[in-house]
This record gives sequence, structure tokens and C-alpha cells, in this order.
Amino acid sequence: MKRQAVYLRKQLEKIRKNKLFELTVISIIIISALLIGAKTYEEASRFDRVIYWLDWGVTAFFLVEIIIRLLSERRFINFFKKGWNIFDFIIVTASLIPMDYSEMVLLARLLRVFRVLRLVSMVPELRILLSALVKSLPRMGYVALLMFIIFYIYGAIGSFLFHEVNEKLWGNISLAMLTLFQVATFESWATAVLYPTMEHFPYSWIYFLTFIFLNAFVFLNMMIGIVLDVMQKESALYEIETGEGEAAEIHWMRENMETLREQMDRIEAKLDK
Amino acid sequence: MKRQAVYLRKQLEKIRKNKLFELTVISIIIISALLIGAKTYEEASRFDRVIYWLDWGVTAFFLVEIIIRLLSERRFINFFKKGWNIFDFIIVTASLIPMDYSEMVLLARLLRVFRVLRLVSMVPELRILLSALVKSLPRMGYVALLMFIIFYIYGAIGSFLFHEVNEKLWGNISLAMLTLFQVATFESWATAVLYPTMEHFPYSWIYFLTFIFLNAFVFLNMMIGIVLDVMQKESALYEIETGEGEAAEIHWMRENMETLREQMDRIEAKLDK
Amino acid sequence: MKRQAVYLRKQLEKIRKNKLFELTVISIIIISALLIGAKTYEEASRFDRVIYWLDWGVTAFFLVEIIIRLLSERRFINFFKKGWNIFDFIIVTASLIPMDYSEMVLLARLLRVFRVLRLVSMVPELRILLSALVKSLPRMGYVALLMFIIFYIYGAIGSFLFHEVNEKLWGNISLAMLTLFQVATFESWATAVLYPTMEHFPYSWIYFLTFIFLNAFVFLNMMIGIVLDVMQKESALYEIETGEGEAAEIHWMRENMETLREQMDRIEAKLDK
Amino acid sequence: MKRQAVYLRKQLEKIRKNKLFELTVISIIIISALLIGAKTYEEASRFDRVIYWLDWGVTAFFLVEIIIRLLSERRFINFFKKGWNIFDFIIVTASLIPMDYSEMVLLARLLRVFRVLRLVSMVPELRILLSALVKSLPRMGYVALLMFIIFYIYGAIGSFLFHEVNEKLWGNISLAMLTLFQVATFESWATAVLYPTMEHFPYSWIYFLTFIFLNAFVFLNMMIGIVLDVMQKESALYEIETGEGEAAEIHWMRENMETLREQMDRIEAKLDK
Repeated sequence: MKRQAVYLRKQLEKIRKNKLFELTVISIIIISALLIGAKTYEEASRFDRVIYWLDWGVTAFFLVEIIIRLLSERRFINFFKKGWNIFDFIIVTASLIPMDYSEMVLLARLLRVFRVLRLVSMVPELRILLSALVKSLPRMGYVALLMFIIFYIYGAIGSFLFHEVNEKLWGNISLAMLTLFQVATFESWATAVLYPTMEHFPYSWIYFLTFIFLNAFVFLNMMIGIVLDVMQKESALYEIETGEGEAAEIHWMRENMETLREQMDRIEAKLDK
Repeated sequence: MKRQAVYLRKQLEKIRKNKLFELTVISIIIISALLIGAKTYEEASRFDRVIYWLDWGVTAFFLVEIIIRLLSERRFINFFKKGWNIFDFIIVTASLIPMDYSEMVLLARLLRVFRVLRLVSMVPELRILLSALVKSLPRMGYVALLMFIIFYIYGAIGSFLFHEVNEKLWGNISLAMLTLFQVATFESWATAVLYPTMEHFPYSWIYFLTFIFLNAFVFLNMMIGIVLDVMQKESALYEIETGEGEAAEIHWMRENMETLREQMDRIEAKLDK
Repeated sequence: MKRQAVYLRKQLEKIRKNKLFELTVISIIIISALLIGAKTYEEASRFDRVIYWLDWGVTAFFLVEIIIRLLSERRFINFFKKGWNIFDFIIVTASLIPMDYSEMVLLARLLRVFRVLRLVSMVPELRILLSALVKSLPRMGYVALLMFIIFYIYGAIGSFLFHEVNEKLWGNISLAMLTLFQVATFESWATAVLYPTMEHFPYSWIYFLTFIFLNAFVFLNMMIGIVLDVMQKESALYEIETGEGEAAEIHWMRENMETLREQMDRIEAKLDK
Repeated sequence: MKRQAVYLRKQLEKIRKNKLFELTVISIIIISALLIGAKTYEEASRFDRVIYWLDWGVTAFFLVEIIIRLLSERRFINFFKKGWNIFDFIIVTASLIPMDYSEMVLLARLLRVFRVLRLVSMVPELRILLSALVKSLPRMGYVALLMFIIFYIYGAIGSFLFHEVNEKLWGNISLAMLTLFQVATFESWATAVLYPTMEHFPYSWIYFLTFIFLNAFVFLNMMIGIVLDVMQKESALYEIETGEGEAAEIHWMRENMETLREQMDRIEAKLDK
């Protein structure tokens, strides 16, 4: 009984590591993505049945695939040690929950959309790219906090001063911060935000210009900071790789030269005898 | 009497350096920020009394905190030697001034907004970030001056040429410079500024395109200049840290080799005897 | 007979490599470009005949030029080994096909537009620039794929959620992705896309803000990645050029010092005898 | 007579090099700039006489200043050897030409605007900045040419295809290129250009998206190219400054070690005797 289980596990592992199997999974993910796209077209309602069965097929395939990957591990717990596996598991099992009630249809659809992300978990290059992105998150944390404080202060001031000018733009601090974000992206900031405000507060350009300059300034410095940060890490790595070799050789020479001199002193002393 | 004062000072110093006390201050600052945000909502008028008392509580707490920090110093003057302390002192004392007259309410509110900035003075990482930003200010000075000159010249020309096209955009040099800033951010620059102007002056695109290119050119060069400037400083620092060690060893070897040769000459001379 | 052919080939090669001939070709390409530009002016219809004959002359010249370059090669196949030659050949022969039917006139015109690209094949500096651009294409591939996945997922979600808000913007996944591209370029993203959507879905700002931040984040990281990638290649090259020399000298010294010590040991041993 | 001239020249040179004189000139330039700005305000018409006399005074002062700087040179020709001096001379003499005819007033005003540029010629830091900008011009030349070719080709295609959609945007190649520049700056590119065009040509998004991507791609590569270009020059300079010293020392040691070994061989040979 147990030997059969081991044999089955090894067979499943073979399947999982098979290039063809991987390609099939990627193809099914792409088909699944195309299905999601197709559903957004109104003309697709004619092929409703086809899409329904294809969708059902994709779900079934994903279930089979996840079972293969789950059983091919020696212990179930190993499977759940990798973040991507947990992500795959949730996406697949969640789409098995029957959601027939009309309110739930939208949720079911949205869940299916995230299947496209499985492409990232299947293509190694994308996985590397994404983990590099995640790694660079913390170093942006405090800058993000500083920018949030700037937005909050300007949002509060803007809401106090201008909320009578345009209730929709400056009605409360949330709306004001959204308006400020619009200003920060330069979208209609002058025609739709600055000029209407200047009609009531002729000096409000000071508020907007300082905000834009402060923003640009913090953003520029953040960019420079990140580039330098990354470069320092690179150069430190580079140093260990190449510099160490040279530095070690120089250090070796320095010590050897010292023994050479001592030896020379001894020879000279002997000759003087 | 004096011993009691010293004992009190040491107790206050303990409180000030306490992690829990710091966290309490940060929490109170965040509550103060949320209060400011809450006041911008119209729905908040129902909780007017609660907000009033909370606001009063925050002011009282800040007063107590600043007194603790003031008394914990050996000399009062030491407290005012740090820029951030002066900032905190002004923010706290200013909010104590009674401002009941309706015209003053806005000013009182604005003062309270700047309490959020106390967060920067409390979180060391933000303080480092901000002082790095302040340090990079001077190297942007002359570029800012050059850009101001470009804006001034184009503003004057634009005001002379186009003030009859649109009084609101080109009425005087201030308005013209504001319009040019709008053009520099690419906001509706073509649809709202260029095309209406081109109807009267078909060749005005030369004015706008040269302005945009000049601006982009100076900005690009400034960016490159800053990156290089920062990198040079970094590499100079790096050189002192690592390069010096290697350079020193090489120099030591060079000098030693010279003495080695001299010694060798002596040995050879002795042998020839 | 054959000797005459060889003589002719050598004469043609001389012509091809002649600086004056090259300048003539470049001039004719510029004239051809100006002709294309002139045709877009309505006033040009008066000079229709002149333009027609000039166009004919340019086509004839290009044919002669390509024949010269073709015959000047030892084997015809050599000519087609260079990508730019194939490009030139297609552009020139395609414009010989008679297209008199009114529907074909547009196609003929478009083909003539691409003659301007011949300027790139004639000016070496532009050819270098373009091949540098082409080389940097692959390293942008996976980032482009990642961004496409982000656009696809947000497009699908946007189409599901908002297609009732504005059929033109969110009607299907293609339209939604185009709208998202508009949002990514910040064009009227708030006034024309965000605010109308927020009237029906007050929390849709989460959708837009996460999209903008995700986009900016991936783009920023890509930029940094490319700069670092290019710099690493540069520094690797630099290392081989200069570093190798120094490293080799240090290595030579290290080995020599070892033989020096052995020799010293022998001398000391002899003296002890 | 001649001695008096020499004495005068030396006195004028002293004045010219005087810090106070320089500061006076800078102040007068700033006053001149403020006068230009003041004239753009309608309210300034009340002070017309004051402005007129101030303007006259500035012109007179500039004339005196240029005469001082001209006479303080040993030879007149030396003065005209510096580009900035020629610029100053033209600006000052041109404003002396009487332009009373109403049509000329505008030209006279524009000439006076360029007086502000004299600030650049007076402040050394700005002069350095500007000459650095001018130096970086050539390396942008071929990229600018490549971008112009892209704009020209897309302009021609756009004009052929879309000139019936909107005569104002695509009427001829000049208008089309201006529209494309608007698209390149993302100003209303979707709402005012893309969507109206897509109503007639549903696939025109290919035209716009390829244009935007091509543009962004060339621009990005140009940026990277410039940064690398500048960095290579910097690192080459750095190498000469610091690396040379180390490399020279290593080279010296290598040669000395060779003589050391030869000497050692001689010693050993003598001992063997």
C-alpha cells in the first residue's frame, strides 16, 4: 500500500517537472485569460454556453494540476511553504465555491481574473522580476510616509481655505487629498483647479506652486536616493567579487616583503662576521 | 531645595527618554492629525463638543510634554539649541493663545495643522530624510535662478505680444509666468494656450516650442548634474574608506622595496671585497 | 566579355564609395521627404505636375542607385546579406509597382513616406543609434509582459465593474485597456475618468490609485534596472580594459616574490655552510 | 598724451574689477528687469513718465558701463574676443537706436527684455552653468535628428490618413507634426485627438500607441546614453587623477623587482664561486 503511494508520488513529480506539462499549464492560463477578456464583449453572449463549458474545463484542469503538485510533495506542508503555491491554491479552490446567486456572479468573475496572475508564478523570469519589485518596497516606505504627511497637511489647509469655492474638490480632507493627487499628476490642475480657486483667493497660486515644487523636490530626491542605494549595494558586491582578490594579493605581498627584509638583515649580519 | 530640583530633572529626563512616552507622544500627534481631518467633514459638526474637548486635551498634553522636555534639560538654553525643539515650542505655545474672534478661528485651525509636522520631529528616520532634503537645496539654487530668468524673459515677451489675445492668460508678467508654468507642466498647453494664440499669431508655436525645449533641456541637465554631483561625493567617500587601505599598502611596499635594494647593494659590495 | 564585367563592377564600386555620390543620395532623399511633405498641403495641387515629375525623377534615381549598389557587389547575394540593403531594395522596388487605381493611391503614398527612413540607412551615426536602440529591446521584454498582465487584469476588472458607467470607456476589455493607458499618461484621468466613475462607485478611487502607483512603481524599477544593467556591462568592459593590466602586474609580482624568497633561502643556506 | 591714456585705462580697469561696481551693475540689471515687468501692468500707465526716465537712466548707465569696459582693454579687439562681451555690446547699442514709430515700439521693448540675460553674463556661476548646457548640445544632435525623422514620417502618414477627420489637426504635415508634439506631451491626446480619430478609423489607436511607445523608447535610451556618456568622461578623469598614481607605483615596483632578481642572481653566482 505504502509502496504504491511512493510510486504514485514519484510519477506525479515526473509529470510536474515535465516541460510539456509546464507549457500546457501556461497555455491553459492564457486560454483562461482570453476567456475572461471574451466575456467583457457583449457579442460574446451568443457563445455563452461555449464559454461556460470552457470555463468549467479550465477550472477542472487547474484543480487537477494543483492536486498533482500537492501529491508530488513528500509532505503536504512543503507545498504550502512557498508563497506562490498558497496563492495558486487559494485562486483554484476559491473558484470551486458555487456562486449562483446573482450578487455573487461579479465576485466569481473577479476571482477568475486573478487567475491571470498565475502566469507570473509559472514564468521564472516574471517571478524574479516581481520578487525584485517586492524587495524594493521597504526602502520606499518612509518617503511614502513623508509624502503622505505633505498631502495631509496641504489637504487640511486646502479643505479649510477653499471648501466654499468648490465643495466637490475641497469638501473634506479626503476630497482635498484626491484633488491634490490630481494636481500632482498635472491633470487639469491649472484650468480646473488653480484658476477657479484664484478667482476667490488671488494668492492661492502660492499654495499650489509650493505644493508642486515640494512634491517634485521630494520625488526627485527619492529617485536619486534609490539609484544611489541600489548602486552602493552593487558596488559592494562588485568589490567582494573582484577587489578582494587584488586586495588579498597585495596584503600577501606586504607580509612577504617583511619576512624578506628580516632574512636580508640576517644575511647582512652573517656577512659582517 | 536644589537637590530636589536635580532629582526632579533626572526623573523628567527618564520619562523623556522612555520608549513608552515617545510612543504616547506619537499616538497623540496622530490623534491630533485625525482630529484636524475630522473637522473638515461637515458631518463632524454633530460631534462638535467631543472634538472641542479632545482638541483641548491634545493641547494640554503637548504643553505638559514640552514642559517635561524643557525641564529635563540642565539649562533652558540647551533646549532651544536644536531647531526641531524651537519648532515644537512655537507650535505648542501658539496654540495656547486664545483666538475666539471669528476671524482668528481660521488662523488657529491652520496652526493646529502644523502639529502634524511634529511627527517628522519625533520619527528619527523622517528627520534624517528631511535633513537630507534640506542639504540638497543649495545645489539647486543657481539652476532655479537660471530657470526663473528664462521664465521672466519668456513671460515679458509673452505679455508684450499676446496680452491682447487673452487678457486672463497674458495680462501682465505675473499672469504670463503662471501661464508659462502651466505650459511647462503640459496642462492644456496646446488646446487652451497654443491654439487660441496661433489663431492671432500663426507663428507663436516657435515661442512655445522653444520654451518647452529650453525648459526640458535645462531640467534634464540639472538632473544629470545632481546625480553626478551626488555620485562624486559618494565615490570620494568610498575611496577614503576602502581605496586608502590599499593605496597605503602599495605605498608602504614601494618604500620598503627601496630599502631592500639599498641593502642588496651593500651585500653585493661586501661580497666583492 | 567577363573582363568588361569586372571593369564595370569596379567602376560602379568606385561610384558607390564616392563621397559626392553619397551626398547626392542624401540630398535626393531629403528632396523626396520634402516632396512628401509638400503633397500634404492643399495649395500644392497647383504644382501637381511639377510634383509628379519630381516624384518620378526621385523614383528613377533611387532605381539607378540601387542597381549601382547591386552590380558593384561581387555576388548579388552579398548585397542582400545586410538588413539595410534589403530594406532599401523593398522600398525602391515597391514604389515601381504601378498603382493607378484610386484605392491604391494611399498605399503608394504611404510607401513613399518610408523612403525618409533611407536617411537612417545612409547616415552612419543614425545607423549606430538605431542598432543601439534595437539591442536594448530584449531587456525590456519581460517588463513589458508584466505591465501587459497588470493592464489586462485591471482592464478586465474595470470592464466588469464600470461598463455600465460609461460604455465608451469600459465597454469591453480592449476599450478598458485603452482607457487605462490614458489614465497611465495622466490625460484627463481625473476629470474625465475618475470623477464620473466615482459618482456611481464612490470607492473606485482605490482602483485608480492602486493602478497608478503600481504602474509608476514598475516603471521606476524598470528604469533603475536598465540603468544598472547598462552600467554593469560598462564597468565589466572597463575592468577588462584597465583593471586587467593592473591585476596582471600584481599577480606577476606575487609570483616573482615567491621565487625571490626561495633564492634568498638558498643564499642563506650557502652562507651558513 | 599717451601716458594720460594709459593712466586712464588703468583707472578704468580698477573700476571694472571693483566688487562694488559689479554689484552696482547687477543691481541696475535687476532694476531694468523690474522696469520691464512693471510695463506689462496696465496700472503702470500712471507712472509712465517715471518709467520712461528710469528706462532712459538704465540705458545711459549701460552705455557708460560698456564704454568703461571697452576702454579698460589694451586693445579694442580684445573686448570683442569674448562672446559675452559681444552679446552685451549688441544689447546696449541696439537700445540706443531711436525707435519712435509705433510699429517699432514692440521691437524696442523686446530688445530691452534681453537685457535680463546680462545677469547671466555678470554672475560667474550662471555663466558656468550655461556653458555646461551649451557643451551638452552636440551629443543631443543626432538623437534630435532621429526624433525629427520619426515625427516627420508619422506626420506625413497622419496627414494622409486623417486630414479629412479634422482639418485643423491633420490639415498638412506641419499641423500634423504639431498635433503629434501635443500627443508626445500627453496633452488631451486621448480625449481631443485619439477618440475623435477612432470614430472614423477604429484602428487608429495602433498609430498613436506605436508613436507614443517609439517616442518614449527613444527618449529613455537617449537619457541612459547621456548619463553613461557623462559618467564615462567622469570616470576617465577620476582614473587619471587617482588611479594613475597607484598604477605608476605598481609599475615602478614591477620594474624594481626585476632588477632585484638580477642582483640576487649575481650574488648567488658569487657565493657559488
